Amino acid sequence: MSEDKVPSRWIEINCDMGEGFGRWRMGPDEELMRYVDVANVACGFHAGDPATMVRTVRLAKERGVRVGAHPGMPDILGFGRRRMEISPDDMYALVLYQVGALAGILSAEGVAMNHIKPHGELYFYIQRDSKIRDAVLRAVKTFNVPIYSLPTEHMVSDCKRIGVKLIPEFYVDIDYNDEGGLVPVAESSPVTPELITRRIQHFVKTGGKAISKSGREVDIPVDTQGFSICVHSDLPGALDNAAAARAAVIEQNGH
Amino acid sequence: MSEDKVPSRWIEINCDMGEGFGRWRMGPDEELMRYVDVANVACGFHAGDPATMVRTVRLAKERGVRVGAHPGMPDILGFGRRRMEISPDDMYALVLYQVGALAGILSAEGVAMNHIKPHGELYFYIQRDSKIRDAVLRAVKTFNVPIYSLPTEHMVSDCKRIGVKLIPEFYVDIDYNDEGGLVPVAESSPVTPELITRRIQHFVKTGGKAISKSGREVDIPVDTQGFSICVHSDLPGALDNAAAARAAVIEQNGH
Amino acid sequence: MSEDKVPSRWIEINCDMGEGFGRWRMGPDEELMRYVDVANVACGFHAGDPATMVRTVRLAKERGVRVGAHPGMPDILGFGRRRMEISPDDMYALVLYQVGALAGILSAEGVAMNHIKPHGELYFYIQRDSKIRDAVLRAVKTFNVPIYSLPTEHMVSDCKRIGVKLIPEFYVDIDYNDEGGLVPVAESSPVTPELITRRIQHFVKTGGKAISKSGREVDIPVDTQGFSICVHSDLPGALDNAAAARAAVIEQNGH
Amino acid sequence: MSEDKVPSRWIEINCDMGEGFGRWRMGPDEELMRYVDVANVACGFHAGDPATMVRTVRLAKERGVRVGAHPGMPDILGFGRRRMEISPDDMYALVLYQVGALAGILSAEGVAMNHIKPHGELYFYIQRDSKIRDAVLRAVKTFNVPIYSLPTEHMVSDCKRIGVKLIPEFYVDIDYNDEGGLVPVAESSPVTPELITRRIQHFVKTGGKAISKSGREVDIPVDTQGFSICVHSDLPGALDNAAAARAAVIEQNGH
Repeated sequence: MSEDKVPSRWIEINCDMGEGFGRWRMGPDEELMRYVDVANVACGFHAGDPATMVRTVRLAKERGVRVGAHPGMPDILGFGRRRMEISPDDMYALVLYQVGALAGILSAEGVAMNHIKPHGELYFYIQRDSKIRDAVLRAVKTFNVPIYSLPTEHMVSDCKRIGVKLIPEFYVDIDYNDEGGLVPVAESSPVTPELITRRIQHFVKTGGKAISKSGREVDIPVDTQGFSICVHSDLPGALDNAAAARAAVIEQNGH
Repeated sequence: MSEDKVPSRWIEINCDMGEGFGRWRMGPDEELMRYVDVANVACGFHAGDPATMVRTVRLAKERGVRVGAHPGMPDILGFGRRRMEISPDDMYALVLYQVGALAGILSAEGVAMNHIKPHGELYFYIQRDSKIRDAVLRAVKTFNVPIYSLPTEHMVSDCKRIGVKLIPEFYVDIDYNDEGGLVPVAESSPVTPELITRRIQHFVKTGGKAISKSGREVDIPVDTQGFSICVHSDLPGALDNAAAARAAVIEQNGH
Repeated sequence: MSEDKVPSRWIEINCDMGEGFGRWRMGPDEELMRYVDVANVACGFHAGDPATMVRTVRLAKERGVRVGAHPGMPDILGFGRRRMEISPDDMYALVLYQVGALAGILSAEGVAMNHIKPHGELYFYIQRDSKIRDAVLRAVKTFNVPIYSLPTEHMVSDCKRIGVKLIPEFYVDIDYNDEGGLVPVAESSPVTPELITRRIQHFVKTGGKAISKSGREVDIPVDTQGFSICVHSDLPGALDNAAAARAAVIEQNGH
Repeated sequence: MSEDKVPSRWIEINCDMGEGFGRWRMGPDEELMRYVDVANVACGFHAGDPATMVRTVRLAKERGVRVGAHPGMPDILGFGRRRMEISPDDMYALVLYQVGALAGILSAEGVAMNHIKPHGELYFYIQRDSKIRDAVLRAVKTFNVPIYSLPTEHMVSDCKRIGVKLIPEFYVDIDYNDEGGLVPVAESSPVTPELITRRIQHFVKTGGKAISKSGREVDIPVDTQGFSICVHSDLPGALDNAAAARAAVIEQNGH
């Protein structure tokens, strides 16, 4: 999807990228680029490092993929997926630091920042804790870009209050619980490309309903204007998952 | 010195700040603020961390002290003072990352970035290695602010080529060698406030001459428009040193 | 107190040491050594680094102070005082790693390991979570030395089950709550040396009773054979606190 | 090769293992275990972390592979392959810390430490710098196990002086230079399994001669009693390389 024309009804695919660390690699970033619209680039706290960030930004630019910041918990050994108590003041500083670091790299490489998407436990922390949500949203506001998130009630109202645009997300390769929340990666059932296709078709047809892990239909209150589908780059079968999601999006979207 | 009017002939004082780490503190930042014009704020690689950076930026703003980025080597245990081989590509990324991180914080706090000053071994590395100098200057150019440095021939010509403004520095609490280079902190002789006063008076009177460690007069090719005096915050007697430098600067500068 | 003869009734003083990090220092280790019997040496995860550990071990050896390992949470920026979710398997590995690292240094320097004392949040985590307690105690057992801890019921019974000797601790510069648990440093009331003296006298006279923050008398079930008093090295007035504790211990102990 | 009987003439294969970091993996450790006699386990400074170390030690134990410590430079982002200036005192502490950490884990898991082998740049640093060599060998001596190294003249004589046994190594998947030194991984030519077979056969037949990168025959002064062949786990084709080396060793060794 090109950056300049956003159709009145749109669906896009976002994917975490640049989640290597030093010599270590994580997902198949290069191959994934062809299937996604937007890359969430890790900022060095849960994964990523300055050189990896520069390489990932250049790769995305070359492939016409938009770039967002993907800040995480200060927990490199836990890949930012462990719970950790951070004070709101520290959290505000952590997000400014990480997103600012990517902003510096983007500016040098002549790429605009598309959005900010918190990673892993930080994604859940802002749902769970109102002070952390406030701290993160105040930091996000600085950069004048949208936040990608589950469109829960608290998020929607706090984004409005603070003045941050929310891009609602729909997850297709991990599970929802009965309350419309996400089941962590480690506890979600494995998916097939076919299941991903069906999930997207069902979601669009029903105007925003997902099937929860226990089989219930749950409402994901996405904006009627559009939403972003998240595909994980670090799951087995990531490439096939992304290809299936792309095909389903083309079916709906025309591109 | 206020930010908006730079006199035709000016002298200012810069000082490293925010060089704590987590619970650990380094210099007497709060007290030093009254004597300096410009704070070089550590960016997390040789010292500093996101929360310390936010606190230091707020303190400087409150006291009317301008703020620059103070990126360093990725060497927290060595305080960025150990030699380490970094590839130019990695160095470019390291500087963008650190300065960008501070830029994010400054933007959130409504403070403009005044300059960039490399720390410790990085300060020396850019003098010694032309590829590293090139990588650092290309990164600095992104932020459209001057670099603080010794005004050596190589620096002056590379800054011109790349399009980065150079603010020349004069050091008053560590030694110069006979070639006009700096003697590392650990090998410099201790100073007294009186010696600092004499050094500044002599430097101004002679139009840019310092006395080297071995007693020779050496030329520091400062711009005739002005220069920045560096005072260390982590030496014993840092406060008295800064007070002496301030008094000497007021004598020359009027403020 | 010399290592070879433990009197039938003994009181000793332990203190956290080596809690600097790289160039940063924390408590006045050198001066504190004269007042304490036992140093808990930080192992690099919440504070400390290899070179600081070697220096601290040498200092303790020189002053005849016994040395224990002081492992902490993997949280250098939070000084090991923030809550963080660690799996029991990871915790087992973290404790073995840290204590083993100190054991290597002690062996090189010809000093025996006296004990292991978990730091900060880890100290509380083992009280709160039975799986973490089990993982830590299994790691401790490897080194065949006692653990220093609050002598709570769970700790006493798990130490017995796993085969680890427990040295009970009494805290004199932070508060107890009404259940005999500790109030974190940040929430405890400030102390004076006089208060420390009175607390030790009262504790000995009553055979193990402390006065809680709210003024209640609470039982600290110390072994009748003896106990270890903990004095913090990082509180304001640490030296005066330690001197007062030493004087009170001499009064009871004869040394 | 079993641990208790070392034949009068022996050849073994050693391989770096446990070089993941947190969620990131490096070589195919599990598959490689079948081809090697000895695993050099990374100790957390260039790669490895406490949980990875425990897992690797358990895997080696299960497969009857002996375990050595593989300490490295404090450079996780450079995989311990960048030059960095470390003082001898700091180096002594770094090696004690890392090897001690592994020793703690080995002790908990009931596995003896077989040897110590410095990693990457540290391997070269001890060849190049006599003070660093002395510091590392004094640290190694603490653990009373051999060091694996190129059997250069300086190493042989310093090991003798300090009282550390040297196990000489022969490299088969990277190049030698004309002085019998090693060419860094990044500058070595790619190998095939066939080339590895020929190198081992030639080395044994000629009693210790390798063919350098430029085609010269160079002497590797291995002990006549035996030597250890190093195979890299992080090169493309690592498994095939190891299988070829194993086959060639069986041909010579009988096992």
